[in-house]
Amino acid sequence: MSRRYDTISFLSDYGTTDEFAGVVRSVIRELAPHAAVIDLTHGIAPFDVRAGSLALARAISYVASGVVLAVVDPGVGTARRGIAIEVADGEGVLVGPDNGLLAPAVAMAGGAGRAVELSNPEYRLEAPGATFDGRDLFAPAAAHLCKGVDLSELGPAVDADLLFPGVVPLPQIDDSTVIAQALWTDRFGNVQLNIGPDDLPSGFGDVVEIRCSAPTDPTGGVTRAATRVTAFAETSPGAIGLVLDSNGMMALVMDRRSAADELGLADGDQVVIAPLSEDAQPTQSVRVDLTTR
Amino acid sequence: MSRRYDTISFLSDYGTTDEFAGVVRSVIRELAPHAAVIDLTHGIAPFDVRAGSLALARAISYVASGVVLAVVDPGVGTARRGIAIEVADGEGVLVGPDNGLLAPAVAMAGGAGRAVELSNPEYRLEAPGATFDGRDLFAPAAAHLCKGVDLSELGPAVDADLLFPGVVPLPQIDDSTVIAQALWTDRFGNVQLNIGPDDLPSGFGDVVEIRCSAPTDPTGGVTRAATRVTAFAETSPGAIGLVLDSNGMMALVMDRRSAADELGLADGDQVVIAPLSEDAQPTQSVRVDLTTR
Amino acid sequence: MSRRYDTISFLSDYGTTDEFAGVVRSVIRELAPHAAVIDLTHGIAPFDVRAGSLALARAISYVASGVVLAVVDPGVGTARRGIAIEVADGEGVLVGPDNGLLAPAVAMAGGAGRAVELSNPEYRLEAPGATFDGRDLFAPAAAHLCKGVDLSELGPAVDADLLFPGVVPLPQIDDSTVIAQALWTDRFGNVQLNIGPDDLPSGFGDVVEIRCSAPTDPTGGVTRAATRVTAFAETSPGAIGLVLDSNGMMALVMDRRSAADELGLADGDQVVIAPLSEDAQPTQSVRVDLTTR
Repeated sequence: MSRRYDTISFLSDYGTTDEFAGVVRSVIRELAPHAAVIDLTHGIAPFDVRAGSLALARAISYVASGVVLAVVDPGVGTARRGIAIEVADGEGVLVGPDNGLLAPAVAMAGGAGRAVELSNPEYRLEAPGATFDGRDLFAPAAAHLCKGVDLSELGPAVDADLLFPGVVPLPQIDDSTVIAQALWTDRFGNVQLNIGPDDLPSGFGDVVEIRCSAPTDPTGGVTRAATRVTAFAETSPGAIGLVLDSNGMMALVMDRRSAADELGLADGDQVVIAPLSEDAQPTQSVRVDLTTR
Repeated sequence: MSRRYDTISFLSDYGTTDEFAGVVRSVIRELAPHAAVIDLTHGIAPFDVRAGSLALARAISYVASGVVLAVVDPGVGTARRGIAIEVADGEGVLVGPDNGLLAPAVAMAGGAGRAVELSNPEYRLEAPGATFDGRDLFAPAAAHLCKGVDLSELGPAVDADLLFPGVVPLPQIDDSTVIAQALWTDRFGNVQLNIGPDDLPSGFGDVVEIRCSAPTDPTGGVTRAATRVTAFAETSPGAIGLVLDSNGMMALVMDRRSAADELGLADGDQVVIAPLSEDAQPTQSVRVDLTTR
Repeated sequence: MSRRYDTISFLSDYGTTDEFAGVVRSVIRELAPHAAVIDLTHGIAPFDVRAGSLALARAISYVASGVVLAVVDPGVGTARRGIAIEVADGEGVLVGPDNGLLAPAVAMAGGAGRAVELSNPEYRLEAPGATFDGRDLFAPAAAHLCKGVDLSELGPAVDADLLFPGVVPLPQIDDSTVIAQALWTDRFGNVQLNIGPDDLPSGFGDVVEIRCSAPTDPTGGVTRAATRVTAFAETSPGAIGLVLDSNGMMALVMDRRSAADELGLADGDQVVIAPLSEDAQPTQSVRVDLTTR
């Protein structure tokens, strides 16, 4: 007897302006009307597999049991495979392209169980062109899993060790410096770094120095002080806070303002953290705005 | 026997680019799979408690019976309370931060019944950081209410009179002038004012003068004529209409164009309405566009 | 015995910033709690009936059986009618304004069966103003259809031949030239043209010349070579591809870049396709970006 699922958690770079995500939801509704589709987000930047994989990894611990459908797929129509991967003894199945998108979430969920390539044409919609596998390949696979089709029916088993790996940058840490990277800038301008609370040497103290720069920035970027806080609103006006965020990572934040804008940071930029020196600006620098709005 | 609910209406400033709203939906799906989540909007401007409270007040009369989950919460992680407030003899419960966000909607729904502080750790998710109460505090409270947990189990009663109040600006009205405020500019550029149809003295007639200005605008802003209409498309090309909108408020509108752009208005700006004078421009000013697009 | 439906597929130009779509979903939830609302998109450009009608026509083959609720309605509150149209022997009903929005989708679904004007006040919400028929007229009609109310109860029959027609531009095709039009630019910058794969004369070969220009562009626009491909990623870096897209139309594409940006194309612009001449630039023009980001 095969397992049935009743939830499909759906993440993509389809955006909400076009009807892409809506058509995928429609296909699922028609094939598996009992399944609820929970939209995680469709706001992943176009083609940004890395950003999609990080968002999925952040969300995976909270996703309801069932199927995860994830599509950031610049290689659609080429030889890249479509795959489905069981995790947590089959409590969940991740469906999407084999391009690294699923890998960090699979790792977060305890690693891959069975995995298959989605090559059975019986579970694929016929289509005029080959540019929309979200609709034609991945949504039908997710819907059929919900209906009780066993993973093995979707296609031949693949060795999970041969799946496309995800890439998560590791920080460089020594006693005097932590070289971190901006993983994710959220809507509020908070910048999540690739370090956890234990990655900062205890000798650094509650106020540290941060040097922010894009990889090729000729000016060397911005150097500021950042103060350890536990809430956004604990940060003084104009000051930078360093908070333990809701994913257990350290993030650069401000109170009701965008730290990313203030520091000129974007995803992937380097952030060097060190004990406070004289170069940093520990005083609060409230931006004075002379215009009326 | 406690009441059960099966709908959670959800409003936030989480946006749709990040996975915040999706993670909240996932938590609800896992805890209370029978509950449908109806997204009201997640497009409230970041940190804008006032705008969120107004959107919630506009929507509340149409929201399905059940739980309302509202999160615009710049004070997350600080001492500000999380609360749940019954309205309409328990037909609805509003859940969110005690920062004024819920207050206008509670008033619109007939005022607060029982209210509690969400302090029972049994109904809270453990989390590494304290920055995402939507996921860790408010969503679990909403889901448990749907499952039949009584309000009183979520935490100690609080006096509704001591909740953080909402602020809705009142117009100043006399026989010769109405000083109004722009409450809300919608996607189409319609500008809702804080006046109803009875707030305009009858002597003003069907064509009035409007003077629009930001609080500190040194130029004094834009003065125009506005004509009472009952539909957007009744407004002449390039002209400003004054319409009774779908919330029962007066709004400045144009036909297939943005009145907000035309008048330079943003939320919170002042709009002075008076009988038509010679200063106003009653003629239609069709913008001539010399570029090709 | 009348038919009941359990799915409402919902498309509009309401956007996701305001609560419009959420209030419509709330009205449906209260009136017909058994009905699932599938959001197709709310990102149609404001007032753009043509774009909405094309999106609906693209989606209609995939929409689940049931009611389609579509609202792009600049004439709301005027004499334009609200209508409901059966298709596929009543397997589906389209509800919306009679302004051409529904017409192409109705044609795609095999043409209109019964059609009525939504004039029965019993199935309309009372409202202070006349500016939100999505909430007050169309959502209640859709919900009552789901509850088993027969189409004929919503209002008097109307002759489907007298409904407002849709407009889909036809290409001009001869042996030496195809004059096409940009129908739709999606999030990824792919530009769907109004031609199918059989509209290109076979003599044109696998590499064609495209001349792109806005109707009034004095420069004559951009001339480039475009290569037939079957996947985005088959296009060489910087080159333009011509792909059979997921709707069976030809589209101009690039690999992980926006063809619309590269070619300066917007919806409605003309694209002339011809055999390759010396004017075209068959070589790959990789844009050299001297800035750091």
